Amino acid sequence: MPEIVPLQWTGEALRILDQTKLPQEQAVTIARTYEQVLHAIRTMQVRGAPAIGIAGAYALVLAVKGVDTVDLRRIMSYLADAGKAIGDARPTAVNLRWAVDRMMSVTSRCHSVAELRQNLEAEAVAIHQEDVAGNRLMGALGAELLPKEGAVLTHCNAGALATGGYGTALGVIRAAWEKRKGLKVLVTETRPFLQGARLTAWELTQMGIPAELIVDSAAGSMMARKQVGCVVVGADRIAANGDVANKIGTYSLAVLAHENGLPFYVAAPISTVDLSTPTGDQIPIEERAPEELTQWGDRLVVPKGIAVRNPAFDVTPHRYVTAIITERGIARPPYDEELRKLVGGTTVAPSPVVAGEQGQGGTGG
Amino acid sequence: MPEIVPLQWTGEALRILDQTKLPQEQAVTIARTYEQVLHAIRTMQVRGAPAIGIAGAYALVLAVKGVDTVDLRRIMSYLADAGKAIGDARPTAVNLRWAVDRMMSVTSRCHSVAELRQNLEAEAVAIHQEDVAGNRLMGALGAELLPKEGAVLTHCNAGALATGGYGTALGVIRAAWEKRKGLKVLVTETRPFLQGARLTAWELTQMGIPAELIVDSAAGSMMARKQVGCVVVGADRIAANGDVANKIGTYSLAVLAHENGLPFYVAAPISTVDLSTPTGDQIPIEERAPEELTQWGDRLVVPKGIAVRNPAFDVTPHRYVTAIITERGIARPPYDEELRKLVGGTTVAPSPVVAGEQGQGGTGG
Repeated sequence: MPEIVPLQWTGEALRILDQTKLPQEQAVTIARTYEQVLHAIRTMQVRGAPAIGIAGAYALVLAVKGVDTVDLRRIMSYLADAGKAIGDARPTAVNLRWAVDRMMSVTSRCHSVAELRQNLEAEAVAIHQEDVAGNRLMGALGAELLPKEGAVLTHCNAGALATGGYGTALGVIRAAWEKRKGLKVLVTETRPFLQGARLTAWELTQMGIPAELIVDSAAGSMMARKQVGCVVVGADRIAANGDVANKIGTYSLAVLAHENGLPFYVAAPISTVDLSTPTGDQIPIEERAPEELTQWGDRLVVPKGIAVRNPAFDVTPHRYVTAIITERGIARPPYDEELRKLVGGTTVAPSPVVAGEQGQGGTGG
Repeated sequence: MPEIVPLQWTGEALRILDQTKLPQEQAVTIARTYEQVLHAIRTMQVRGAPAIGIAGAYALVLAVKGVDTVDLRRIMSYLADAGKAIGDARPTAVNLRWAVDRMMSVTSRCHSVAELRQNLEAEAVAIHQEDVAGNRLMGALGAELLPKEGAVLTHCNAGALATGGYGTALGVIRAAWEKRKGLKVLVTETRPFLQGARLTAWELTQMGIPAELIVDSAAGSMMARKQVGCVVVGADRIAANGDVANKIGTYSLAVLAHENGLPFYVAAPISTVDLSTPTGDQIPIEERAPEELTQWGDRLVVPKGIAVRNPAFDVTPHRYVTAIITERGIARPPYDEELRKLVGGTTVAPSPVVAGEQGQGGTGG
């Protein structure tokens, strides 16, 4: 199975597989400054909550590399500004802010600029490696939930491209498929940015996993026609009560799964769980540019003057969520209790499956 | 308010406003043979259940114009072949077959080819005019159901372009708006063919009715965020029990409206009600070409080799439908009884609103 490498740290620069060019072209953006990473995040060359968290961490490494000073106080002030800019680049996903906070937490131990640079680089690499390892663990755990055969529906892209290199929702599907389950994947195209049609379809094609592409609005009737076994999606933020912010359309899929008696699973690293956000009502929803709907390439496809609403995310109330799959275990209702336990814990729930997979954990990225 | 003329009969040819070119270009296809009309229907230059019914009727007029014979038996056999080809051009909408059957029913009274030609032309013009008159009636009836202000969500295009020239779902919205109700319209883009983004948005812009365009999958979360007052859609076929076949995504909107306690209305001419189809399970669902999803113009946007499912329609079970608005009155559950009564009846349910509007009935087309 070919490795998909969304982000690669060279020691001097961050190599970013440009997701706006996929699947036609596998172009790499080489970011040597934190501003270049920031631009890549804002323009969605790198996207997906865990991936932008990792990119944000490397951006801070680049930020301190770019300042020619031995004045620790000056560099800390510069780092704080960079951290704020990175943390604010996309408002809905909590991973970006989580990564910045984690990076900042290692700066207090430093006594020189050299040490600061070293610690930040080590922390960013650790964040990246832990993400891949965590994805493999959640893949192994989540695979047990999937049916032995039939269609698993996923939305947007929560695969290797959205993470350090393995995938959350698509990692669960991939892990299940590797166990030779007779699955196929139904991929929603995911308007307006087409993460499903362009990215998830590409990853599945690369991996040789059987897949069928549908328009977003075909998912419901395919559920009603018994052509879907379950739904697995990623998350950009999970509130303390289990409400899930994810790509626009996720809420609809959850309601439709519920109405049709189908399990609806969310797979996300524990860093996506934000206990400081009590419910989904407090999660900010990013509105993106109208051009994502109105233009196809350079061509205007809508009448001039039509107003557009383009919320990029929605919130799925926890009552529609069957289970939340994390690298530390699977949470089920009541989520407020279960998520608090998982976030508080440091070790993965011991299970033979997890133990078997754990050895592979550090290899990715 | 500018007239939108999707179909215009010149006495010699059918002028078809090419809906594949809208909104960028208002190109007209002049069809002088029934094969040209058939091609326009298959390629969706003309689309929308009532509009293709009307186009199909004119196609039969062109069919008999194109045969140079006075042999009534020969021309009847040719007409039967043309009728079959037209009736089969698109399988889900029942209006095409209904129009062909109605056209065929006037042929038995004819004693010469000249009389046949005359009767067919008169019948096609009557079908067209009755459609516009019926739309105005259902608009007046349906307008009473809409809230005084707030957002009405519609899907696909059930406007002037989908009909003889006024609209079913969009006719109801238009009629409500003309009564100075403070409505705005939420328009789903309607992948893959973008009837919402291209056609409904264009009609609303032309009419000056406030509208906002959204991706299909944003509808659900906007309902949950209390940004939608009700849903009004058209129909391609309504089964005897009230199950509704309509553009893919309609089922999802109905479930989401139901879950959020919002009324879900279907507006369609009585010719869309097919008592010979007991339930939605018996309605054939057209699958269209994968290229509708995979290409943007000439450009492939998905990875090579990805499989595609492209059902063009879905079926909404009647339990999600609040009311069905026809030109003969409004049906509510139990639909099997109410629809049978409306189909059997010939006059519109008397109401002051309807009487007032009736005078305008024959002006359209």
